[in-house]
Amino acid sequence: MARYQIILAYDGTDFQGYQRQAKGRTVQGELEAALGRLGWSDRITVFAGRTDCGVHAQGQVAAFDFEWLHPVEELGRALNAHLPADVAVRSVCVAAPDFHPRFDAKGRTYQYQIYCEPDRDPLRDRYAWRVWPELNLALLQQAARLLPGTHDFAAFGTPPRPGGRTVREVLSAAWEPHSGGLLFEVSANAFLYHMVRRMVYLQVLIGRNQLELESFTQAVQEARPQPPGLAPAHGLALKEVLYVVKD
Amino acid sequence: MARYQIILAYDGTDFQGYQRQAKGRTVQGELEAALGRLGWSDRITVFAGRTDCGVHAQGQVAAFDFEWLHPVEELGRALNAHLPADVAVRSVCVAAPDFHPRFDAKGRTYQYQIYCEPDRDPLRDRYAWRVWPELNLALLQQAARLLPGTHDFAAFGTPPRPGGRTVREVLSAAWEPHSGGLLFEVSANAFLYHMVRRMVYLQVLIGRNQLELESFTQAVQEARPQPPGLAPAHGLALKEVLYVVKD
Repeated sequence: MARYQIILAYDGTDFQGYQRQAKGRTVQGELEAALGRLGWSDRITVFAGRTDCGVHAQGQVAAFDFEWLHPVEELGRALNAHLPADVAVRSVCVAAPDFHPRFDAKGRTYQYQIYCEPDRDPLRDRYAWRVWPELNLALLQQAARLLPGTHDFAAFGTPPRPGGRTVREVLSAAWEPHSGGLLFEVSANAFLYHMVRRMVYLQVLIGRNQLELESFTQAVQEARPQPPGLAPAHGLALKEVLYVVKD
Repeated sequence: MARYQIILAYDGTDFQGYQRQAKGRTVQGELEAALGRLGWSDRITVFAGRTDCGVHAQGQVAAFDFEWLHPVEELGRALNAHLPADVAVRSVCVAAPDFHPRFDAKGRTYQYQIYCEPDRDPLRDRYAWRVWPELNLALLQQAARLLPGTHDFAAFGTPPRPGGRTVREVLSAAWEPHSGGLLFEVSANAFLYHMVRRMVYLQVLIGRNQLELESFTQAVQEARPQPPGLAPAHGLALKEVLYVVKD
């Protein structure tokens, strides 16, 4: 018996989030079904990042205990043969027996894609949020520069448990042009519920001159409440989860 | 009554090709249904490029006659309000009364996307063909350089009508690195049925050292038959249709 750490990618469009639940198709449910086909009879897989309904992932991390009698390289291939087209194992390795993908994670990186066009583009709508009129990139970049550091992010989301702490450390945050659109990339030690989608929504208001940079500064530095609203889930992807390599 | 020329984009995944038919969902069927909701009672829309089942388009061109009493800019918006999420009008203009999107077209440009990875990537599989092991880009580029010119492309596809001519003029053809994968872009005055997918398939065999460049040269210059096979439809997109602007 060993503990395995896997990196998963998925297209979140047709999932009700990652977490197994009574109703609806979930990434965890599909992974556990595929493991079951390989003879796994444990009942628990643990995921690093809580992705909402409709959110994608390039680098979600999950772990499970399994007595797999073949080479580790073959576990990924065997799982992919049983997983549906919208979820795939990207890599597999043997982890420490006490490895926990969520508690051991030192950070997460999310990406959010936007494109600015007057009309819908069916070839981009699956992975990006369409915004029009055009956003002022310089203003977005000014706003993003305010995010790094340890702040009370209460204006940007709610803690996983009611009454929980809302202080998080943002490690980096930046906007850049990307395939004819804009890409926001943000890393933090951990995120509040809806935090990236709130960050994007408020920055888009700034990029449209509908919110002052001053107000955003107060949100970051003094947790001042801001206009409600969320960027849609389909523009968001969990890019990777960061761990400290132990000796 | 005027003739309108529109540029359409669509995600071909859930379509049975562009052309209206008795059974199955088609782009033409959706466009005509949307026009019908706006009071259009004509029975014919004409498309520039014949895209197969599963092929995408950024710049398909269609035309129809319509008595639209509002500004032309509003026609695109009105159609998009009635079209499903996987097809959208990108632009609308008034054309000459005798404009024909297929007969008047001087050329078409297609793009084909490939990515080389050992494992499936659910975030790329919708618009790109996964190929492994890695392809030799220099060999692909050598092969593509053989394509431009007027040749009998009988080894690359079949004419729209049985017994039709198989000579076509390729205007340009090139491979380049693109978002972590490879992009093949090819323009020709017109294409045979399956021509781009055959071109890609045979070049992939070359990039894998499974077909000699010599053999590909003979295919282009002497119409010598080649191993059968097609690159899958989902990597292909009709990028644009070229017209000569008339005074």
